[in-house]
Amino acid sequence: MLNETHNPELTSWVSSANEENTDFPIQNLPFAIFRRAGTNESFRGGVAIGEEVLDLAAAKDSGAFDGLALKALEACDSDALNDFMAMGKEAWSALRLALSQALRSGSEKQTLLESCLVNQDDVEYSLPCRIGDYTDFYTSIYHATAVGSLFRPDNPLLPNYKWIPIGYHGRSSSIDVSGQAFKRPKGQIKAPDATEPSFAPCKRLDYEMEVGIYIGKGNDLGEPISIEAAEDHVFGLCLFNDWSARDIQGWEYQPLGPFLAKNFASTVSPWIVTSEALAPFRASWTRDAADPQPLDYLESENNRAQGGYDIELEVQLETEKMKQAGEPASHLSLSNFKHSYWTVAQMVTHHTVNGCNLMPGDMFGSGTQSGPEHKEAGSLLELSRGGKEQISLDNGEKRTFLEDGDTVIMRGWCAREGAKRIGFGEVTSTVIAAD
Amino acid sequence: MLNETHNPELTSWVSSANEENTDFPIQNLPFAIFRRAGTNESFRGGVAIGEEVLDLAAAKDSGAFDGLALKALEACDSDALNDFMAMGKEAWSALRLALSQALRSGSEKQTLLESCLVNQDDVEYSLPCRIGDYTDFYTSIYHATAVGSLFRPDNPLLPNYKWIPIGYHGRSSSIDVSGQAFKRPKGQIKAPDATEPSFAPCKRLDYEMEVGIYIGKGNDLGEPISIEAAEDHVFGLCLFNDWSARDIQGWEYQPLGPFLAKNFASTVSPWIVTSEALAPFRASWTRDAADPQPLDYLESENNRAQGGYDIELEVQLETEKMKQAGEPASHLSLSNFKHSYWTVAQMVTHHTVNGCNLMPGDMFGSGTQSGPEHKEAGSLLELSRGGKEQISLDNGEKRTFLEDGDTVIMRGWCAREGAKRIGFGEVTSTVIAAD
Repeated sequence: MLNETHNPELTSWVSSANEENTDFPIQNLPFAIFRRAGTNESFRGGVAIGEEVLDLAAAKDSGAFDGLALKALEACDSDALNDFMAMGKEAWSALRLALSQALRSGSEKQTLLESCLVNQDDVEYSLPCRIGDYTDFYTSIYHATAVGSLFRPDNPLLPNYKWIPIGYHGRSSSIDVSGQAFKRPKGQIKAPDATEPSFAPCKRLDYEMEVGIYIGKGNDLGEPISIEAAEDHVFGLCLFNDWSARDIQGWEYQPLGPFLAKNFASTVSPWIVTSEALAPFRASWTRDAADPQPLDYLESENNRAQGGYDIELEVQLETEKMKQAGEPASHLSLSNFKHSYWTVAQMVTHHTVNGCNLMPGDMFGSGTQSGPEHKEAGSLLELSRGGKEQISLDNGEKRTFLEDGDTVIMRGWCAREGAKRIGFGEVTSTVIAAD
Repeated sequence: MLNETHNPELTSWVSSANEENTDFPIQNLPFAIFRRAGTNESFRGGVAIGEEVLDLAAAKDSGAFDGLALKALEACDSDALNDFMAMGKEAWSALRLALSQALRSGSEKQTLLESCLVNQDDVEYSLPCRIGDYTDFYTSIYHATAVGSLFRPDNPLLPNYKWIPIGYHGRSSSIDVSGQAFKRPKGQIKAPDATEPSFAPCKRLDYEMEVGIYIGKGNDLGEPISIEAAEDHVFGLCLFNDWSARDIQGWEYQPLGPFLAKNFASTVSPWIVTSEALAPFRASWTRDAADPQPLDYLESENNRAQGGYDIELEVQLETEKMKQAGEPASHLSLSNFKHSYWTVAQMVTHHTVNGCNLMPGDMFGSGTQSGPEHKEAGSLLELSRGGKEQISLDNGEKRTFLEDGDTVIMRGWCAREGAKRIGFGEVTSTVIAAD
């Protein structure tokens, strides 16, 4: 539902928010948890506006807000957004509208809020919320087919794929925010021709370009969320890099799924772009007539009309050599979340249809968002066709999988005629050598 | 390591703790979170002694304790034991010793502590801690073989089983404490001969008899826990019922593992029996010479000498008819944790060998603890041989899988010559009809 906060003509008295290619115009207003870098300040909620962060703890005390928006700001004065996320859609919307009005060009609140801004260059982020449970889905049929053909050449796409939004439980403790550096994992690896596994550092280390989905309001155990209600439970989306150790995965994942291949690190972008900010960028969702149509519980008119999201997703790689030479990162792929075989609403509804309870701050990964074309693949496993083809980087270096010192940079943005472009910022993270 | 708290001759001034078959003699001293039932009191830590709970918040203020034991009690004055669990072995031991001395027959602390007792009949429990992440292992080779032969008749035990302590991530939010009642889950089910799945209530609802393992002190991301250090990170053990929807599982679990088949409910016993209390009941761990020997990182002298636990595990079923007739529950199986193919230390070390971080209060499930004989099977799937054979209950009723109104009761205890018998109490939970 579009409202005055989406008006593409709106500008802000924060001038950097009005620049053409900013990720954070006044139509976006994404949330993070931040503090001034290198200080002992408490982490607290912030909203991005141009190159600034609006400090929500300071905004709460500024006198510029009242009513439900003020209550929402009180919940944001915390080192995690869970309480705000739990307040639900009405509170999220009230705060968005109040922030939009207060940050607009000509707002009389400008004088109250100018001192609440901190430049993004001067801050550090933490996780935006306590992620109680993290579930990873597998919603790109292109990724599922490409990966399946590597692990199961004769049976790439399993018969359940077109019926079930396949998902599995992931590890919450090792999720960190952009900037995470992690050691190359070690583990059991068995070469296809070896008779026994050996213990070694991962040789097939990979990223996965995913969209992260944050649950706002939860549900009680035993009370499924219908597909009609599903979107009211989605607080917002982020960028998500689900690091993967392909050689560990190949040996361990049968029969209970990936485990140590995934739980050594996962990285989210600092900013959560809210569901409401994404309203102008919804996409219709269709299912090929030749494919099975969803069972009733996964089907709704609204889901068909606008269940998808039109979000561009780019991956870049910055190697150690590039850093030393001051060269720019090299482009690896560009994909779009609209290619997803299942929608966010379908993920929420499927996850709860057995009575499973979701909690505010829980996160879903969308699964690697590979598009239909090879250049749209969201992982090196796919881009290198299982490690068989080298990928050439802009500076002449080659990669099949990641090397120590490699930094993976993911960016996301929404751009459509008639709407103001909004961005997700970026998620970056770096591989360091195994001990 | 045995010490004075394990002395089988010790008795308590709490006379019910001295009865022959109590689960909670003074040699046990397990921890829970409790309050008086039906009140608005704060939940807080408690220790079981005979038929009583020693209220640790009251004990803290009693004047009976000082030093590290008092600090530990301060951490237990909380609605979750995480802070106490995070304090580590030295604090756990100091409190155990102080409690053992204060509760002993003849202790001069008796007058200070008598008013800190609450009868177990008068209390209700919550989860003993915030379980951040829950991981389920698969450590019974008898269970893995039996289940594997049902899902993959030609390939029951996969080649990685004897090399890797197979585990997967589970859902934390739907774990609750003994007494949990949950609705029969609904989901997608595909009969073997059907061309398409349908949406229906689970028809093959099952329990799994597991041991729950609570992590005390955690580790930092990127810093594996060696097998020599692993046991220092284990706070204690509980009973765990990992409810399973076999028909949902059969259709959904490929390729990423069980998801909705497991996350609708899981139930823990209220009491955590500490690692220290279990010291007299350790068992040697061996690996058949014909089987692969563990890779070095999973091997230690201590793990061979006493990596196992000798814990009897019993399952009973109480049907709606039995409840109405006032008949006792019917015995289903008796097994023992010593049959586990992998030890707790091996689970901890394997889980962290890639750098994954464990947090205080994280829980592992051991996997269904089926023993070598059919009557020792820890699930109905196994007892009914995949639903093909009916199980006769004491009152003449039959079961293949669970029916609405069924209550599953699990008990565990340790008994050995030369040691005082200690018990885990029980975990009970009831299936209610689907909506």
